[in-house]
Amino acid sequence: MIPSGVKRILEKHQVMPDQRILVALSGGADSMALLNVLLMLGYNCEAAHCNFHLRGDESDEDERFVADYCRKKQVPLHIKHFDTEEESGQKGISIEMAARELRYQWFWELVEKMGFHQLATGHHGDDMIETFFLNLARGTGVRGLRGMRECNDTLLRPLLAFRREEIEKWCYQNQIPFRTDSSNLDTAYQRNFIRHNILPEMEKLNPSFFSTMQRNFKNIDDVWQVFLNHMEELKQELLAREGEHMLIPIRLIREHPQREVVLFEILRPYGFNGATISEIIESFEGIPGKQFFSQNYRLVRDRYNLILLPRDTEETEMFYIENGQEEVLAGSLSMKLKQYEVNKDFKFSRDPQCIHLDADCIDFPLKVRRWHQGDLFRPLGMEKFKKLSDFFVDEKLSRVEKEQVWLLLSGEDIAWVVGYRIDDRFKVTKTTENILEIRI
Amino acid sequence: MIPSGVKRILEKHQVMPDQRILVALSGGADSMALLNVLLMLGYNCEAAHCNFHLRGDESDEDERFVADYCRKKQVPLHIKHFDTEEESGQKGISIEMAARELRYQWFWELVEKMGFHQLATGHHGDDMIETFFLNLARGTGVRGLRGMRECNDTLLRPLLAFRREEIEKWCYQNQIPFRTDSSNLDTAYQRNFIRHNILPEMEKLNPSFFSTMQRNFKNIDDVWQVFLNHMEELKQELLAREGEHMLIPIRLIREHPQREVVLFEILRPYGFNGATISEIIESFEGIPGKQFFSQNYRLVRDRYNLILLPRDTEETEMFYIENGQEEVLAGSLSMKLKQYEVNKDFKFSRDPQCIHLDADCIDFPLKVRRWHQGDLFRPLGMEKFKKLSDFFVDEKLSRVEKEQVWLLLSGEDIAWVVGYRIDDRFKVTKTTENILEIRI
Repeated sequence: MIPSGVKRILEKHQVMPDQRILVALSGGADSMALLNVLLMLGYNCEAAHCNFHLRGDESDEDERFVADYCRKKQVPLHIKHFDTEEESGQKGISIEMAARELRYQWFWELVEKMGFHQLATGHHGDDMIETFFLNLARGTGVRGLRGMRECNDTLLRPLLAFRREEIEKWCYQNQIPFRTDSSNLDTAYQRNFIRHNILPEMEKLNPSFFSTMQRNFKNIDDVWQVFLNHMEELKQELLAREGEHMLIPIRLIREHPQREVVLFEILRPYGFNGATISEIIESFEGIPGKQFFSQNYRLVRDRYNLILLPRDTEETEMFYIENGQEEVLAGSLSMKLKQYEVNKDFKFSRDPQCIHLDADCIDFPLKVRRWHQGDLFRPLGMEKFKKLSDFFVDEKLSRVEKEQVWLLLSGEDIAWVVGYRIDDRFKVTKTTENILEIRI
Repeated sequence: MIPSGVKRILEKHQVMPDQRILVALSGGADSMALLNVLLMLGYNCEAAHCNFHLRGDESDEDERFVADYCRKKQVPLHIKHFDTEEESGQKGISIEMAARELRYQWFWELVEKMGFHQLATGHHGDDMIETFFLNLARGTGVRGLRGMRECNDTLLRPLLAFRREEIEKWCYQNQIPFRTDSSNLDTAYQRNFIRHNILPEMEKLNPSFFSTMQRNFKNIDDVWQVFLNHMEELKQELLAREGEHMLIPIRLIREHPQREVVLFEILRPYGFNGATISEIIESFEGIPGKQFFSQNYRLVRDRYNLILLPRDTEETEMFYIENGQEEVLAGSLSMKLKQYEVNKDFKFSRDPQCIHLDADCIDFPLKVRRWHQGDLFRPLGMEKFKKLSDFFVDEKLSRVEKEQVWLLLSGEDIAWVVGYRIDDRFKVTKTTENILEIRI
């Protein structure tokens, strides 16, 4: 029954027998069954085995077992060794997540390099149901509750319609050897717990719980896909890129009745989690300037937009100065600020490290960032805008000097090319009443 | 903690203390707690109690208990007796479904008649989670997995954030008496099973499973709302009304990547279930004419559209005649059909009960339906189209006679105003090779 079922699934998804399939082969019942079914159906298979070195000798025995079997069956086998613990430590992710990332990264490399048509994995229906309960307990969102897909472009999972038991039985009946995984992955204990303590109870409620869950997955996935399409349209409409920054208009998020899940879906790829999303949404009620961090990204709640930018490069950073703030450390730049009323003793500074601006022209929070190609300003004394790049040419700045230039902005307008020239629009005039003095 | 929590929830949803609230009061801990909390918070409450007569004396004791308590507390009480079993039998629905329908129907009548601002029910967080697992085991679709809402227009459920245990404990601490429901509703056993066998296991996986589920519900509901909005847009775009018929273009359903869930959402309000939806979608691959039934509706897979129409009135029915079919019973109309090649012995019938058409002009399946305002045809011998209503005037048909007229259609064209006149486009001519003879 398994081979005919798999055949039907492959035909349904137009996977032809002359296509080359890479089978992810752990040595467990699922992947051994999968390899054998595909060979029986006449597919042109090769196998790929990961040795994660997580279970000492056992890992090596798995590798030997798989290698012997493939040699006997004349199936070309690719093997790779991983230092999973190191990867996990380096990336600050769980062992399980590290193993998964390493595995799929290598599999897709192989698929691409060696021109396979498909990658096939031995995930079965019970895996899907266990994952459902695991994610339900974790609260991972609907994404984690929708099951897996039999065929997703080049990823095949032809065993999703079958149960673990059926697959093992089929292995016994067909004398296909397999290894039992005494896995110590993080969720192994939880999966076992679900398998033995929860699923049997659900089956008491509904003896065909397995097939009902297949229908549930279909229902959830259908609703999810509609949601994803909506998100795609929304992203097209919402997101704007500006250099390395991404801008997300706050008003549009705020007006969306499902703002949390929408913002979560937008920011999830950048590593922001659910708790941070709630904080970001709360920040809409406060003043601009608040910042939020994921591992690699920074999100700034600006006046009208959320600004998303990579964390690691100072070039893309943006710092904020609130009204009344007296000191700021913007990356390598340190500034002191002071505001006071104009009086007769006021004198312009000659020091390029210290400037005076008309405080009433300033739109707080001030921003400090690196300059970009295309930036314009009105150098003090000029009536026309000038490209910053041209200004730098006139000032004969070297490439390195240029790279180190900071800008001070009021709203979107450059107020000071820090250390070089203030903007004419913000200069102190006869009518100025309040001064903002800034010293670097 | 419960009163302050409920207060916060009511304030959040702008339910003001001067509003009049009808409390659904079964006498159990949940509804007794709810009534008392609302009274403590100064709300103007009345109570409504249903006696479903499902548990003999116990039902009557519940009623007495509630009546005594409300008298003591000076809370106006509305009581209604239901013959739930009879209702269940008459409607062919489960006892539980019948009780629920009767209860809410009466509650909403009271709310409207007596001008309450809100109806409040004692549903709590554990109810929601139990329902989730119940619906998961039943496979009811995402609608059944998204939890309940604290406030839905005029329906308040202020206890959703609390656990059954907390509520009972609060009743003990505040010396609020309550009755324990030895319910024999259909799902009582299953709910108990979930409560005692499944939820404790989920809490072993995640000790804060209760609050994780509250987040899960929010996530699922958000995705669901986005889906519902999409469905609303789609319905605007997809559905057309034509008299009592509703037309659903097959092509648009077929092209939708989530066609099953989309069609299910469109047809669910008309009582079609998931299994029927799958059959309907399969029928897209077959020839037109297939019919599907829910309790009150009929759906016809026509050539380009699905036609949805009420079942009970003959006026709105549509019958199909396949090519080669020799007999048809269309409501009160019975017809015999015959096809043969033209030969020299062929004679036109003089009997208005028997007609001859050019079989090669016919587009099968033929359709039989009542006439509608706006129908046009080309009466035999005429070159122009005529309104059917004008034709009836010329023929001096009475209102009752007109009501009884049937039409035979080829595609969308009237071929025969049955018993009166054939259409010129389908008449037998010198070039006719095949005859379709129809006798009523």
